[in-house]
This record gives sequence, structure tokens and C-alpha cells, in this order.
Amino acid sequence: MSEFTHFNQQGRAKMVDITEKNDTARTAKAKTSIQVTKDVYDKINNYEMGKGDVLSVAQVAGIMAAKQTSQVIPMCHPIPIKGVDIEFQWDIKDNEYILLITTTVKTKGSTGVEMEALTAASITALTVYDMCKAVDKGMIIGPTFLVEKTGGKSGNFYRN
Amino acid sequence: MSEFTHFNQQGRAKMVDITEKNDTARTAKAKTSIQVTKDVYDKINNYEMGKGDVLSVAQVAGIMAAKQTSQVIPMCHPIPIKGVDIEFQWDIKDNEYILLITTTVKTKGSTGVEMEALTAASITALTVYDMCKAVDKGMIIGPTFLVEKTGGKSGNFYRN
Amino acid sequence: MSEFTHFNQQGRAKMVDITEKNDTARTAKAKTSIQVTKDVYDKINNYEMGKGDVLSVAQVAGIMAAKQTSQVIPMCHPIPIKGVDIEFQWDIKDNEYILLITTTVKTKGSTGVEMEALTAASITALTVYDMCKAVDKGMIIGPTFLVEKTGGKSGNFYRN
Amino acid sequence: MSEFTHFNQQGRAKMVDITEKNDTARTAKAKTSIQVTKDVYDKINNYEMGKGDVLSVAQVAGIMAAKQTSQVIPMCHPIPIKGVDIEFQWDIKDNEYILLITTTVKTKGSTGVEMEALTAASITALTVYDMCKAVDKGMIIGPTFLVEKTGGKSGNFYRN
Amino acid sequence: MSEFTHFNQQGRAKMVDITEKNDTARTAKAKTSIQVTKDVYDKINNYEMGKGDVLSVAQVAGIMAAKQTSQVIPMCHPIPIKGVDIEFQWDIKDNEYILLITTTVKTKGSTGVEMEALTAASITALTVYDMCKAVDKGMIIGPTFLVEKTGGKSGNFYRN
Amino acid sequence: MSEFTHFNQQGRAKMVDITEKNDTARTAKAKTSIQVTKDVYDKINNYEMGKGDVLSVAQVAGIMAAKQTSQVIPMCHPIPIKGVDIEFQWDIKDNEYILLITTTVKTKGSTGVEMEALTAASITALTVYDMCKAVDKGMIIGPTFLVEKTGGKSGNFYRN
Repeated sequence: MSEFTHFNQQGRAKMVDITEKNDTARTAKAKTSIQVTKDVYDKINNYEMGKGDVLSVAQVAGIMAAKQTSQVIPMCHPIPIKGVDIEFQWDIKDNEYILLITTTVKTKGSTGVEMEALTAASITALTVYDMCKAVDKGMIIGPTFLVEKTGGKSGNFYRN
Repeated sequence: MSEFTHFNQQGRAKMVDITEKNDTARTAKAKTSIQVTKDVYDKINNYEMGKGDVLSVAQVAGIMAAKQTSQVIPMCHPIPIKGVDIEFQWDIKDNEYILLITTTVKTKGSTGVEMEALTAASITALTVYDMCKAVDKGMIIGPTFLVEKTGGKSGNFYRN
Repeated sequence: MSEFTHFNQQGRAKMVDITEKNDTARTAKAKTSIQVTKDVYDKINNYEMGKGDVLSVAQVAGIMAAKQTSQVIPMCHPIPIKGVDIEFQWDIKDNEYILLITTTVKTKGSTGVEMEALTAASITALTVYDMCKAVDKGMIIGPTFLVEKTGGKSGNFYRN
Repeated sequence: MSEFTHFNQQGRAKMVDITEKNDTARTAKAKTSIQVTKDVYDKINNYEMGKGDVLSVAQVAGIMAAKQTSQVIPMCHPIPIKGVDIEFQWDIKDNEYILLITTTVKTKGSTGVEMEALTAASITALTVYDMCKAVDKGMIIGPTFLVEKTGGKSGNFYRN
Repeated sequence: MSEFTHFNQQGRAKMVDITEKNDTARTAKAKTSIQVTKDVYDKINNYEMGKGDVLSVAQVAGIMAAKQTSQVIPMCHPIPIKGVDIEFQWDIKDNEYILLITTTVKTKGSTGVEMEALTAASITALTVYDMCKAVDKGMIIGPTFLVEKTGGKSGNFYRN
Repeated sequence: MSEFTHFNQQGRAKMVDITEKNDTARTAKAKTSIQVTKDVYDKINNYEMGKGDVLSVAQVAGIMAAKQTSQVIPMCHPIPIKGVDIEFQWDIKDNEYILLITTTVKTKGSTGVEMEALTAASITALTVYDMCKAVDKGMIIGPTFLVEKTGGKSGNFYRN
């Protein structure tokens, strides 16, 4: 005789169904940063890193990563990205050199692009690390967080 | 008459040549974290998140991301990963709930696996964010940093 | 003088044009199975496999595979997946231990998601094999088949 | 005061460390099949399927899938594939038309290529399904199983 | 005191925002070619290349590449491809053997598919090269160019 | 009674077995070009293209494509790339503006990297096209060809 046992459903991973959600314009903005030494800062600005122009390569990496998000984040829905913008700003005080990274992702889709903005930010920072790690391995990435999102039924989010 | 103009070589991106470097055993360990609310913490531990068992999915995502590293970090060499391990630990004090994430990557290759460990850590944390963002969008990821690396000509690195 | 010869068109591969098809809600459900030994069954249920919690990892793999379908199946159209669900059930009789795997994929698109459901099922089963093969290499996957599909101009399909 | 809680290690997913294993020649052979109707069989053999020459496309898909294996099977190590061969054979009896698919994968690596052979077989069969599903959706894939493996410390495996 | 310095915006890479553009039917047609020796031409036509039927494999590669375009071209938007067709024609005169490759890509999307058609053409030609390079490495690919595009606000384009 | 019919082996695609080939240092150099209008040339050099610094993005794309080669070229073996370098040179005469692109790829592997060099060159040129196509769609890519390869049993190749 056959005995059927259901696998415990608790905690079962699934990509939640969003068939009923409409396509609407949505945006998400995320921030991260990477703290570097003065030496790394100087070499970035003077284009002296052996792997090339750090910020330029990092920007391309971040934009490409936004498009790959649903392939690396398991339960993330694939979304047709409509625009990605990545900005850099140096925050220098005393002996601290911090590169601020802000990513903005736009879509017209049935779910938000928070993960795309956060993933783009993370990969941008990781690429900066990769381009500079021959000079210093002590760089610190983040904190990384969502700054705002607009669009969608759950309403807008603005970080305080 | 033809006029040839060399593109300015300064800052030109390249994947640096490591043909001469030998295959040796190498390891890298990275750390990141994600700070969540008590509500998120409770739902993670009680397996009540709608997308599934958070830490379990995040761990799979991190391991898979280690293998994808050279495809998202532009100047990173492809390396045959030999092992990946991801550990979680909760650090709870007062009203702060912080999930600590430690990744260890091993290879026998001609360059280090720092980027693989850092990328695995970042994607693990981003996956935690994705699994929980229906409950709270204010979670903060990182700081993210290299803890140690061993093997290779440039010597070992241990973070203070 | 130039001589033009058309390549034999017979059997020429192409991704058939679906520009005229409308986006409608569609679902597909597929089934597969994997037959394992009692030892493998016990180790899965007691979380004793060295690679980790078998069903949990397999579920994540299956869901991610659904999103990759159009990249591994050559003539398959890319479709924005809206939901994926994977269920496990043990069918135990006499000395046979069979894990039944059912996948359900949903979309709102211009073609069906049969391939996504079948690919998710196959990769889920293959991942179970991978997680357990250190214990036994004789596991048998399948049969694998479509159970039903709904939506689309060609009408619904229900397996007898 | 801070309280640290270790995540339950039981069942934790990991890519097991194979740094110590040597690169040796290894092979794996897998089999699957797909049962089709007479109509599908005829259209395959007469190159009348609208998507193109079925077996030819399926073969390419299977070979490419072998190379993607470690990206879809989460805990599978990346291995430099050295050769892939896929054979087809029709098994026709009474009114049954079964396409037998045999895949052989070779490597010189530190772990086996069983998953690559099984994944190649599965994707080959799934591609046959995709190429023919406009004619019939009732095709049945598999059983899918490992036929043999050679090389590596765990010894050879031959299915009875 | 903190000092903020904006990164020079000039030349900053971005994926331009197309949120406001509507989904409309669009097509693009591209052409390339590969010039081969008589020996290569004969072996292609007699199916004597060791890697297999050259045009058949190249066609599959080109179609799959069309789907991958936004993952290899950094600032290219992801677009849901609706159809891909690849045609071959031999242009033989005197002692020149030139394989002409024409790709047609269709979509219903918010931006054009020129890059998809051009990428499909390039990868088709590169695959022909790969399949034949054991016989001759002197083959010449291209010129590669857009033949026409239709649909979209910028109007149609027809090469003179 | 069962009747077995072997699929016609002629032209069957396969990834040829290179298990017996040794890992040796190998290089490949390829060239392509893209002919642009004076307007495009001016906007590239003045960093006035809306999508960003053209050559910088194209270089990153080309390097990343070298690493993806075995995933887009079906019968191409995966090879651990050890170095990639991409050079640009403008060839201007009369009213013709041609960007020359030279790629050099290095490995220590069991087969050559000709395909990696050619693919990197093609994707670099295609990216230039993508970055500039809002200004002009008539740009012409190529010819694209192998310039030289060194290493491996088949000996060196130098284009005349």
C-alpha cells in the first residue's frame, strides 16, 4: 500500500504570484559607499590603477548588474528595466575618503525595482573594490540601503 | 593621407595578465550583516515570511553568486571555485537585531578569491532583504569587508 | 559572374514570430519524480546529507531554473514569469521511495509557460540527485511530463 | 549586553571543499528518452516541425547545457568540460515511438561530471519537447539516469 | 569639515530612461558574411566538419544570442524578443566563397531590436568560424551592418 | 518486436574531446573596426553621446564578452582566461572615420583562445554601435579577423 507524506509546507520557498498586479511606472533609489585609503583615492582620481579607470568600469558593472538581478536573487521576479543611473560623490573629511554611490532604477512593471537598485549599488561598490584591491584590501563597503521607492500598490517609501 | 591617433591609454580597462602565476591553494573570508526590525527577526525565525525560509534561500543564493563572480565583476578573472561555506549568526542587543553573515571561499587557482567571498556575502544579504522586504524596506546591509585571505604571492591578509 | 545558392530551408531553426499574440494570463503545471534508496530517503529527511537540506536547495534551484528557461531551450521565447511554486510529496510503498515533484508556473504573456514548468521540474530533480549522489548514484529521475496548461489561443490541456 | 545565537547548522547548504582532490580524467554517461506520437515522429523525421530540425537543435541545446550545469545546480562545482557527445536512437515497437538520448561528458578535473551528463540529457529531451509541443503536449520524458562514470577516488560506477 | 566633490558627469554611462515610450511592433534586419576557402566551403556543404553541421549549429547560436543581447551589450535595454529568423546564402564568384548571413528580429516593445539583429548576425558568423577553424584560421567576418528597422518614434531606417 | 534506428551521424554536432591536450600558454589577437560618420566621431571624442563615454564602455563590454565566449559559441570549450587587453586606434582619411579595435587574449589552457579574441572584438564593436546608434544607424562593423595565435600543438598562426 502506498503512503503519501506531504513535505512540510512551512517555510517553503516560492516566487509569489503577481499575475494580478498591473504594469505601472516605478522607481527605486539605493545608496552604498566604499571607504578607501588616501593612496587608493589618489590613484582612482589620477587614473593610476593597473586595471583601469575605476569609476567608469564600476558604473558599467552596476548597470549590467541591475539587468541580472532576477538571475542572482532567487525569488525576485524578472522585470523589464527601463532606465538605470549611477552617481558617484566623494565625501572627504579628516583622513577619511568615502565614495558615495547612488543608484536609480526605473521600470514600468508589475512589481518594484528595489532589488535592482540595491544590487546595482552593491556590484558597483564590489567592482571598485576589485579594481583597487592590489593597492589595499582593507576597504569597507556600505552600509547599503534603500533610499526611496515610488509606484505600486504598497505605496511610496522614503527613508528618514 | 591617413592619420592614426592612439586612444589615450591612461585609465584603459584591462584584465591583467596572470598567465605566469601558479595554481596554489587560496582562501578568502568576508563578512557582512543586515540589520532588521524585531518583526522581521521574528518572522525569519518562525518561518513566516511569504517567500519562504529566509536564511536557507539566502545561503543558496550566496553560494551560487560565488560561482558567478567573474561574470558580474568586469575585470575579475574566472577561477574554479573549490568550496564555499556561508555562516549566519544573530547579534541581538537592546532593540537591534543584526544578522551576521560570514562567507569562506576556497580555490586552487592562479589568483585569489577575495571577490568571490565578498560577492557571496553581498548577494546573501541582498537575498535576505528580498525575502523580507514585504514586511520592512528599511533594513540596512553591511558594512561589508574582507576578513582574511591566504595563499598567493602577495601573502596573507588578516583584518585587524 | 556571381552565383547565389539558397541554403536548404527545410528544417531551418527559427524562433517563430508571436508578435501578434496578446498578453493573457497563463499557467502550466508539470510533474516529475526521483526514486531513491531507503538510505537516501532517511538522510534527506534527517538533514544528514553533507551538501545540506536537499529539498530546500532543490526548490530554490527549480524556481531559478524557471527564470532561465529561455536561455537554455534554444527556440523558447523569453516570458516574464509571474509566479513559481514547487511542491514535494513522498510516495512510499514496499521498498520504493519516490519523491514526487510538482511545479506550477504562472505568467501574463504572449505564449505559454509549459517549458518553464517542465524545466523547473527537471532542474529540481537534478538538484536532488546532485545533493544525494555521494550516497547513491543509482537514483532514477522521471518520467517527466506536463499535467495541465491554461490560457492562450490553443486552449487548455489536461493530461488524462 | 549582546547575545549571539548560532543558526542551526543542521542541513546548512554548502559547496563541499574539493581543494585537495587532484585533477584526473573522468567521464560520465547518462540516458534519458522522450516518448512521442506517430505524428510527432513523422514530422521530426521529415523535418516538418515549424521550429526547425528537432534533433539538430536539441543536440546543440544539450551540449550548451553541459557547460551551464554548475550555474543551474546550486552545489555543483564548476568543472572545465573537455568533451560532450550526444547520441540519438529511435526505439519503435507496436505504436510506441521513443527517442533514446545518450550523453557522454569528459573532463580532466577534481570532481566528476555526472551532473553535466544528466543535465545535458535532460535539456536535450526538454528541447525536443519544445520543438514539438505545437503538435502534441502529451510527450513523456524519461526515465533519466546515470549509466556509468569513470575516474576519481570514489571509483567507477556501472549501472546494472 | 566634510568636502563633497561631484564626479565629473561628462561621459557618465547610463541606461537611458525609456519608461515613457510605448510598446509597439518593431523589426530589425542585419547582415554579415564570412569569407571561407574552397576547402572549408566543401566541408561545410558535405557535412564533413568534425564539430558537426556548421550552418545548423550557427543558426541556433545566433537565435540564442539574440536573446542574450542585453546581457552582453552594457547599455542595451532588455526587450522581450517575439521572433528571430536567420537566413544563409552562398555568394560564389571566381575563387571566393562568401556565406551571407541575414538576421531578422521582431518584438513588441518600447525600444528597437537593432542590437539584437546585429548581435545575432555576429554570433552566427563567429560560430561558423569556430566550427571551421580547425581547417582554416584565415576566414574573414563581415562587414556587419543594419539593413533596415521599422517601428518606433524615430521612424524607419532603410540602408541605401 | 523492437526496431532500433540510429540517427544519421553525419554532421552531428559535438564538443570534440580535448582531454588529452596539455595546458600550455596560448595567446590570440583579433582585429575589427567600425566606420562612423564625422558627427559620431566628434561626439565620441567630446564625450557627448547620451549613453556615456563610448570607448570606455565598449572596452568593458569586450573584456566581459571574452569571459562569456564558451556560453555563446556552442561547441567552444570553456577556458580559464588569464588576460584580456583591448586597444583602440582611429584611422582617419579624407572623410572616413574608422575606429580600429585590437583584442589580445591570453590563457594557460588545453585549447586556443581565438574565439575569445574574436568574440571580444565583435562585442566591443557592437557596443560602440549601441552607444552611438541614436545619432546614426549606418555604421559598418568589420571586417573582423584573427591576426595571430601562438601556443598549442597546431602551431602558431600569423595573418599575412
